[in-house]
Amino acid sequence: MALKLYALPFSTCSGRVLFCLHEKQADFELITVNIMTGEHKHPAFLAKNPFGVIPALDDGDLTLFESRAITAYVAEKFKDTGSDLLRLSNPKEAALVKVWVEVESQSYDPAISPIFFQHFIAPMRGQSTDQAVINANLEKLEKVLDVYEARLSKTKYLAGDFYSLADLHHLAYTHYFMKTPYAKVINERPHVKAWWEDISSRPASKKVMEGMTPP
Amino acid sequence: MALKLYALPFSTCSGRVLFCLHEKQADFELITVNIMTGEHKHPAFLAKNPFGVIPALDDGDLTLFESRAITAYVAEKFKDTGSDLLRLSNPKEAALVKVWVEVESQSYDPAISPIFFQHFIAPMRGQSTDQAVINANLEKLEKVLDVYEARLSKTKYLAGDFYSLADLHHLAYTHYFMKTPYAKVINERPHVKAWWEDISSRPASKKVMEGMTPP
Repeated sequence: MALKLYALPFSTCSGRVLFCLHEKQADFELITVNIMTGEHKHPAFLAKNPFGVIPALDDGDLTLFESRAITAYVAEKFKDTGSDLLRLSNPKEAALVKVWVEVESQSYDPAISPIFFQHFIAPMRGQSTDQAVINANLEKLEKVLDVYEARLSKTKYLAGDFYSLADLHHLAYTHYFMKTPYAKVINERPHVKAWWEDISSRPASKKVMEGMTPP
Repeated sequence: MALKLYALPFSTCSGRVLFCLHEKQADFELITVNIMTGEHKHPAFLAKNPFGVIPALDDGDLTLFESRAITAYVAEKFKDTGSDLLRLSNPKEAALVKVWVEVESQSYDPAISPIFFQHFIAPMRGQSTDQAVINANLEKLEKVLDVYEARLSKTKYLAGDFYSLADLHHLAYTHYFMKTPYAKVINERPHVKAWWEDISSRPASKKVMEGMTPP
């Protein structure tokens, strides 16, 4: 039985899961959740995710939510197909994947997501963009990218010389970020720029990005 | 060779790792990092964690940082001793542990950590406590706790009827939070209160909390 993903292709957290499903060549059915009509706050969806946010995943009678928990589950379930995103056969590499997955979650995401929100979502909701929020988070993001630049001058990808879930988790927000006037903070750092060009041009990445037009 | 943990017993992120090490009965050496003198920004520590924050862990020639990556590594490395924190022998249970680990990381921590900062850290630094920040985050925290209350009325712990890494990750911040005037948001919710009393009274929890006096 195929996995069922409750999501929206242009959503960043949905995208995180879609990149993983495509990278693992996993069979799945996409069920669109209409967040414009508040479908994610209806009892049927709240039964899948009590926090009322997309995405959620059904695998038979098991329901999961939280995009990074879903990607870890999918990467492990399909460990024998597609790209080796977890490096489970090498405990040291697997541990470094965990470290850089956490760096994305705790340092990169908290800086880039408010910029995405202010630049794309606020205007869509008829709110004005708060430039001070963008500027403060750009400063945070640049500090994170300085660490990435140093790291990527030593290894081709974040966790080592192999593409992993840690890199993949950056795709969704960075895809949109590169369409803003602030993309230069990536492009100014040669190793970060080369890494971004590499991970965004993978066939699975390009496939998912086709459905990710800025909101 | 014993693990080497670079940390401070009263720090919340260090605590997250200490609870795990004690729960797994892992042999380790604690190396105190003097953050008052800025030791965490010195080259020797930056070589362990380029973001310059504690904790970091050495296991032989492998160095890890990010507290939640370290706990996952420790829980897996010592899977045969102490409590079964990951439920690796049951893929469904293991997946639900991942989900609720992410809930702590993405929903609980972002609400409780600013309250901790404003109540304990700001005064310590000679700054005034911003009550508006506390109030806004209490409101967020209560919404998260409403979901927890519903969840814990169905299962004894967050991921199921078993203590796991998902519960353990809540110990450090909640330990301090229960010493603030806002503890009532836990105590008012009977299932959350019972869960807290259960997880905070485990021998490993009590042992680590002895070293965690409010800053």
